[in-house]
Amino acid sequence: MKLKKLVLTGAAGRLGSYLREPLSKMCDELVSTDIVDDIGTLYPGERFVQADVAKFDEVHAILEGADMVVHFGAIVDERPFEEMLGPNFVGSYNIWEAGFQHGVKRVVYASSIHAVGMYPKTEFIDTEVAHRPDTFYGLAKCFTEDLGRMYWEKRQMESVHLRILSAAQVTNPRALGSWLSYDDLIQLVSRAIDTPVVGFSVVYGVSNNDRAPVDNHKASFLGYRPKDNAEQFAEAILAEADAADPTDPGTMLQGGPFAAFELGQSDMSLMKIVDDRKKT
Amino acid sequence: MKLKKLVLTGAAGRLGSYLREPLSKMCDELVSTDIVDDIGTLYPGERFVQADVAKFDEVHAILEGADMVVHFGAIVDERPFEEMLGPNFVGSYNIWEAGFQHGVKRVVYASSIHAVGMYPKTEFIDTEVAHRPDTFYGLAKCFTEDLGRMYWEKRQMESVHLRILSAAQVTNPRALGSWLSYDDLIQLVSRAIDTPVVGFSVVYGVSNNDRAPVDNHKASFLGYRPKDNAEQFAEAILAEADAADPTDPGTMLQGGPFAAFELGQSDMSLMKIVDDRKKT
Amino acid sequence: MKLKKLVLTGAAGRLGSYLREPLSKMCDELVSTDIVDDIGTLYPGERFVQADVAKFDEVHAILEGADMVVHFGAIVDERPFEEMLGPNFVGSYNIWEAGFQHGVKRVVYASSIHAVGMYPKTEFIDTEVAHRPDTFYGLAKCFTEDLGRMYWEKRQMESVHLRILSAAQVTNPRALGSWLSYDDLIQLVSRAIDTPVVGFSVVYGVSNNDRAPVDNHKASFLGYRPKDNAEQFAEAILAEADAADPTDPGTMLQGGPFAAFELGQSDMSLMKIVDDRKKT
Amino acid sequence: MKLKKLVLTGAAGRLGSYLREPLSKMCDELVSTDIVDDIGTLYPGERFVQADVAKFDEVHAILEGADMVVHFGAIVDERPFEEMLGPNFVGSYNIWEAGFQHGVKRVVYASSIHAVGMYPKTEFIDTEVAHRPDTFYGLAKCFTEDLGRMYWEKRQMESVHLRILSAAQVTNPRALGSWLSYDDLIQLVSRAIDTPVVGFSVVYGVSNNDRAPVDNHKASFLGYRPKDNAEQFAEAILAEADAADPTDPGTMLQGGPFAAFELGQSDMSLMKIVDDRKKT
Amino acid sequence: MKLKKLVLTGAAGRLGSYLREPLSKMCDELVSTDIVDDIGTLYPGERFVQADVAKFDEVHAILEGADMVVHFGAIVDERPFEEMLGPNFVGSYNIWEAGFQHGVKRVVYASSIHAVGMYPKTEFIDTEVAHRPDTFYGLAKCFTEDLGRMYWEKRQMESVHLRILSAAQVTNPRALGSWLSYDDLIQLVSRAIDTPVVGFSVVYGVSNNDRAPVDNHKASFLGYRPKDNAEQFAEAILAEADAADPTDPGTMLQGGPFAAFELGQSDMSLMKIVDDRKKT
Amino acid sequence: MKLKKLVLTGAAGRLGSYLREPLSKMCDELVSTDIVDDIGTLYPGERFVQADVAKFDEVHAILEGADMVVHFGAIVDERPFEEMLGPNFVGSYNIWEAGFQHGVKRVVYASSIHAVGMYPKTEFIDTEVAHRPDTFYGLAKCFTEDLGRMYWEKRQMESVHLRILSAAQVTNPRALGSWLSYDDLIQLVSRAIDTPVVGFSVVYGVSNNDRAPVDNHKASFLGYRPKDNAEQFAEAILAEADAADPTDPGTMLQGGPFAAFELGQSDMSLMKIVDDRKKT
Repeated sequence: MKLKKLVLTGAAGRLGSYLREPLSKMCDELVSTDIVDDIGTLYPGERFVQADVAKFDEVHAILEGADMVVHFGAIVDERPFEEMLGPNFVGSYNIWEAGFQHGVKRVVYASSIHAVGMYPKTEFIDTEVAHRPDTFYGLAKCFTEDLGRMYWEKRQMESVHLRILSAAQVTNPRALGSWLSYDDLIQLVSRAIDTPVVGFSVVYGVSNNDRAPVDNHKASFLGYRPKDNAEQFAEAILAEADAADPTDPGTMLQGGPFAAFELGQSDMSLMKIVDDRKKT
Repeated sequence: MKLKKLVLTGAAGRLGSYLREPLSKMCDELVSTDIVDDIGTLYPGERFVQADVAKFDEVHAILEGADMVVHFGAIVDERPFEEMLGPNFVGSYNIWEAGFQHGVKRVVYASSIHAVGMYPKTEFIDTEVAHRPDTFYGLAKCFTEDLGRMYWEKRQMESVHLRILSAAQVTNPRALGSWLSYDDLIQLVSRAIDTPVVGFSVVYGVSNNDRAPVDNHKASFLGYRPKDNAEQFAEAILAEADAADPTDPGTMLQGGPFAAFELGQSDMSLMKIVDDRKKT
Repeated sequence: MKLKKLVLTGAAGRLGSYLREPLSKMCDELVSTDIVDDIGTLYPGERFVQADVAKFDEVHAILEGADMVVHFGAIVDERPFEEMLGPNFVGSYNIWEAGFQHGVKRVVYASSIHAVGMYPKTEFIDTEVAHRPDTFYGLAKCFTEDLGRMYWEKRQMESVHLRILSAAQVTNPRALGSWLSYDDLIQLVSRAIDTPVVGFSVVYGVSNNDRAPVDNHKASFLGYRPKDNAEQFAEAILAEADAADPTDPGTMLQGGPFAAFELGQSDMSLMKIVDDRKKT
Repeated sequence: MKLKKLVLTGAAGRLGSYLREPLSKMCDELVSTDIVDDIGTLYPGERFVQADVAKFDEVHAILEGADMVVHFGAIVDERPFEEMLGPNFVGSYNIWEAGFQHGVKRVVYASSIHAVGMYPKTEFIDTEVAHRPDTFYGLAKCFTEDLGRMYWEKRQMESVHLRILSAAQVTNPRALGSWLSYDDLIQLVSRAIDTPVVGFSVVYGVSNNDRAPVDNHKASFLGYRPKDNAEQFAEAILAEADAADPTDPGTMLQGGPFAAFELGQSDMSLMKIVDDRKKT
Repeated sequence: MKLKKLVLTGAAGRLGSYLREPLSKMCDELVSTDIVDDIGTLYPGERFVQADVAKFDEVHAILEGADMVVHFGAIVDERPFEEMLGPNFVGSYNIWEAGFQHGVKRVVYASSIHAVGMYPKTEFIDTEVAHRPDTFYGLAKCFTEDLGRMYWEKRQMESVHLRILSAAQVTNPRALGSWLSYDDLIQLVSRAIDTPVVGFSVVYGVSNNDRAPVDNHKASFLGYRPKDNAEQFAEAILAEADAADPTDPGTMLQGGPFAAFELGQSDMSLMKIVDDRKKT
Repeated sequence: MKLKKLVLTGAAGRLGSYLREPLSKMCDELVSTDIVDDIGTLYPGERFVQADVAKFDEVHAILEGADMVVHFGAIVDERPFEEMLGPNFVGSYNIWEAGFQHGVKRVVYASSIHAVGMYPKTEFIDTEVAHRPDTFYGLAKCFTEDLGRMYWEKRQMESVHLRILSAAQVTNPRALGSWLSYDDLIQLVSRAIDTPVVGFSVVYGVSNNDRAPVDNHKASFLGYRPKDNAEQFAEAILAEADAADPTDPGTMLQGGPFAAFELGQSDMSLMKIVDDRKKT
């Protein structure tokens, strides 16, 4: 069941960069794509094609003959709706529609906790809770999950939606629960690819943290069993952290800092923001 | 609590036309808008402004000073995604964002059963079930509901999402369950406006039909109590109807004919389609 | 959509007798069958065939060419398992299997509250609660419901399972909640037949009693809206009734007297039992 | 099943006063009690005994030989915990424990919406949702409901807990949903008494208001079907009401003004408060 | 609490054979029974009695004086209903009824995933989901579970229903999720026997597979904690497997090949079938 | 985030004694209090103040300047309501109210399984099930949990409610499921203190026992991951145990012996009772 052709979007991004090597081993040909024009040295079996996911024709050309698409290409930050419309909304449509036209079997999508970021951490959430986006960034994830469900139910095109919590380093109390290690990310994407049938599925992308505030039981058939645990960092981080204010959305809600943003008004990168808040 | 200024979009549409007179009585000034350039004779207190909801500036200008918006303006049919992107997706964003900038208190939105059209009719659905859109048309409703929830949770701007089943005449077996009479539509919009607090709410727009396949209990605080009942037409319609095929999505699923469409491929008006299938 | 041929089993039974006339008007030919050899004067369009539902060949012969079957033929009382095996278990299999072989579209089945008779009346039950049979009689209803679901899911043969509460006269406090009037029975069977698609459905057979202890919301698409209400008898019956013992299963549980029976040990008819307990 | 002896506590209170006459007709002897020393002219079959429910011996003496107790005696307002401890907490214990010692079959208790007053009105609540008290007043209702459940499960002593919404006149928008008319109150108490078995039950005390924000389906076996509807007052009240602020707990939450109180700090009567807020 | 007498049915079957030795150590006397006339060398404390579970008298004779019964005797394949009626339906009744007459405390029953085989693997199922049998084989499991629940609720005779997924070798992708190792089977049966109280319980028989598609949390009190994990076979099996078709019931549904069978039409042994499909 | 001042009530109790040392390391100053007048040698940073939690003034004096309170002080046994009213009910109020007046951030409370002790062990319970107290002891836990929720929702004062199952030695079959080891108790209290935000939370206090009959998934964000497992004692204990009677509440229900007590009538210490029943 080795794949013939696999497409990775967002290959120059932080997570995409980590996925290139393992993905290149799961297929005869990995086509990596990004809006930037260079992603560095290629792995054996990898080919790079520059493309803008917001442009249907470019997406359509790349997906010809692909078995599956790992779709990580989008703006990874909160920006005004107008800026996100192309890459984060239309881009998703382009992937699914071009994929359908080419008979692509499945899309593995980088969704996000921000699709449900307005839930309090103290409230249990599994993979079937209703959407509660915290930003336009999260709203695009909701849109894409609904789109993916529709393509499955109307056209039997499969998708797995990985609601990643935070794949950054563990530098603040929130990350003790939300951390997704790179090894666990790779396991998660691998399972999303090698599981024989997935239909439309949602799964949280989080490591085996003691304090993980989400629940993957309803996606157990995917066999995702993370190995890393942010608790190793707990003592050091909690010792330095300030007391938390339970009435602050950025502290109490699943979305963390995103839940506290004014809609569309961040111009920092996601990483910078997390760093700036690292003592909260 | 009589409203000073109320805005109605889609005022030239079939449902919008019916709403103009009753809405004009609930406010000092009703601003009716549509993409067409004429909506006929105005009612006392009504003013017409031509505008395209897909254009932010035109929406922004109209919403200044408004208390509430009744947003019915969009393509009311299944079309390719590219055609719907402006009026049905961006249009919704424009209404909420311009509304927020002007301090609009609430949006009353014409959502649709097609946001959940892929549920079988034999499966119980209330106002909290997960989205299962049946078309790009339905996907735009899902997008707008999630957008509305976010504006409530982040910015305390209220909205009521009316998931209308079918407001056409009762000419086929499906409509025995899905019919929304004009009187009941008016009651529904009135409650969505006069209820003191609504937060983010969803309610099905359906008459008091014996065979209604949806449930409004979780929205009972809105006080919507429909009076009409399509059962009066049952004997005549059922006598003429052909036997139904329970394996046909167009018969078995909540979305009816939309659930059977190829995505984006209808070029008939919603009304025509329903008429063509009237004996099913 | 008038049916060509409809088959009624148990035509000589108390409920079957009431159904013969209205059913005869819903089809070109009504074939009434029972294990007894005479059901009296026939209605226009009605034909009688004596048969034992426990015998596959007899059932098979009768179902040829039928559109639907209304299956009420079985022992209507609690008896030892061995006595019920043929008519109440094998009989159901015979109806579904012979029906499938002949292309019968749907079975309307007289299920019973005794499929869930061990629930306390004070606990809410809808049409999706798990089985909790109170007798072998109830166990046969559970068996048939599961059989019906399987024939729908594997073979797309539809069925509606009418969980009748009590169709006797209102002579005791339990019946104030459980009564199903004959008019409402007829409406219920009519809806089960004329609803265009039903898949596999369960609905409680109970009138519009103030004190009805079950809930049909999840079957609302069937359009069953009972008109009669046992509350008209409440004052007289409650005045005469003894104080109830809340620790008595026959009083506290949905199954009433059946919930208190020793399994298999009743040799009274259902009606007699109810009469004997009428002051409880 | 006419009761021999029935005890009513809080007989001088607003609701208690209304219940005296109808209760006196449901039993051979009605013993009315209150902490005040005079309740006016007695009805046929009624006897008055002054008593303090906070004193076990006084309660014990009154309950001897009683079949049931209708327990409405308590402070009906928010006060400091220390003041409520006797009448609202210990008083409940006294009723149940003295009742148990005398073999009393059932307690009908005036619980309150304030046991769940912190739920938003826009969130559906049925009779099984978890407690969310809004005041010490509400906390005493939670305590008593849990006490009643324990006496049922451990000692088979029945109780019905009437979560009354608001039994005042309809003078503000909240009451359009929360109103309980006197006739409906009497029906509710009657059903709580005449239903043969009730175990431990909870039911909302609210009229058949279009805008009722609570749901009694899970208590349907009690047969409570209210007749009055506050919607008759809607037009007049809504016309005068100010715009509501959805971020105000007193407007958005089920408990209304109580949800906005500082704990223990009201010194107004419940009625006065409601009047003062009548335009909200 | 060592048992005096334990009865094992189906002792010559594949699973029964494995259970004989461990069960013989849990009791003074193990009576092994099967429809075949020889089960080979006996273990210390074991006695063999040939019997047909479909014959009440034979079952009755064997159960005299037994503390518990481990009931694995039945046809382990899909066959026409008529063939299964005796061993799989009547056989279960015989065990419970004869057991009751002899005061047997508990039955441990080999139920099966096929009682719920029509659920999609991508849909979460726990031990309380409604029955959805995929075959007559599965329907017999549903029948027996309902029977067991009734004997518990009416007669306080306990039972544990082990819904075994697949106890064959891991030779295909489905088994990566469904595998139950022999060691885990033995642990499971041991817990079902040694847990002090079980009432009526259901538990899935599956190893600690990463990809297990069912959930045992609601049966956690039984203490079943499987140790084996089919993931050790994943790489080899997935490498050889063909691409799966998500629209094939045999791939997508819990029941696997059984979900794809025509009802009653398999004449292969369960093992052969699984082998034939091993590359799917 | 090291705490300045932490208060421990019930410091002389069995569990309190174990907590003193670890708590003393989590803060600059640990104030230990109890109704007895001596708790033995103090740990570095620990100070002892004798006080009665039932007296508001004494509690108020101690809580001045505290960051958090670990509240374990109460009667740890079933006694008549009158005896428990002060320490177990009023005591809780005093802690929360005095804490609020002093700006205390959080209370960590020793709740108990007896708040939900009337659930059968075979019925799944998570941290959100409704209260079902088994004793006045359990009723006080229900009262305090509701109080804690109200102080969070009205006043944003946090609390974690540890529903401890049994912290005694493992000497009987029940404890195989219910055991909480001292190391796990310490971990649990530590997490309740160091988790940055907790709002109002409930978590079961139980070790990682194979047979644990409760579920903490909904409190996973707290990061409580117990390490000990009573299964090490299973073989020895089960070998000696008598057969259990599934109709005995003391065996079948979560509350164990408490579920079988007459209300208020135990005068043995909790430990003695458990010992006396050790073979059950």
